[in-house]
Amino acid sequence: MMLEDLSPGMVFHGGPITVLEEEIIAFALLYDPQPVHTDPVAAAAHPLFQGHCASDWHTAALSMRMMVAAAGHLGWGVVGGGGGELSWARPVRPGDTLRLEAEVQEVTLSRSRPDRGTVVMRNRTFNQRDEEVQVLGVRLVVPRRPHGAG
Amino acid sequence: MMLEDLSPGMVFHGGPITVLEEEIIAFALLYDPQPVHTDPVAAAAHPLFQGHCASDWHTAALSMRMMVAAAGHLGWGVVGGGGGELSWARPVRPGDTLRLEAEVQEVTLSRSRPDRGTVVMRNRTFNQRDEEVQVLGVRLVVPRRPHGAG
Repeated sequence: MMLEDLSPGMVFHGGPITVLEEEIIAFALLYDPQPVHTDPVAAAAHPLFQGHCASDWHTAALSMRMMVAAAGHLGWGVVGGGGGELSWARPVRPGDTLRLEAEVQEVTLSRSRPDRGTVVMRNRTFNQRDEEVQVLGVRLVVPRRPHGAG
Repeated sequence: MMLEDLSPGMVFHGGPITVLEEEIIAFALLYDPQPVHTDPVAAAAHPLFQGHCASDWHTAALSMRMMVAAAGHLGWGVVGGGGGELSWARPVRPGDTLRLEAEVQEVTLSRSRPDRGTVVMRNRTFNQRDEEVQVLGVRLVVPRRPHGAG
């Protein structure tokens, strides 16, 4: 997919992915070993989450997996830090089924590099009740078609 | 660690973690299967990164692991979306050794809930050349000591 193929308002749909308890535990043991993620019994008493839930970074990683599956290898990568908003509105629970809506918000040609441009995406991850669980804003570098091609 | 133990300017130091090529590939196959992360040979021709590098989400997950190891189970979790700035200044390469500096920026008592407050952290991840590879801002809910205790 090239810059010329993208326009504001386009939406890529990713997923679904169902998140299993054992996957939540396995991810957390490696990257976020807090009892609310690693221990379903201890998690029941958690003052905020009141039950077992996935690491936010697991939600982020699964959202990336859905993005790659939905949009292919869109662009060359993030740029200018790539970052922006990242927020988690509510926890992901064992058995939740996630899907992604990745919307193109801006498409901008590079002034200095005729082979590329930037695309701002707003990627929202939802659970099976259509509740938002994550919002991510990213700025990607996306190649343009070679001049004279296509 | 309770809210009373934290004050602006405190820094938690995490790591080091050395990132191996096979770990980069394994994480990417699960969560970010783009050739620049999964295929060291193909990655050499990548127009931006010009070589194999970790998924940004792998960098984020490793940074979380260093945060948990450095600061324990700090707080109850993220709040109000938790999010803020997330950016990646440069790629993480196979063999890079990462460390974390997590700085307390703000400590605020809750007006409505006497058992808690919020803490704003700015977590910076560096490589072995002290180059910043990730910056993350998060807002955490942190419990206060029970009234009259300690």
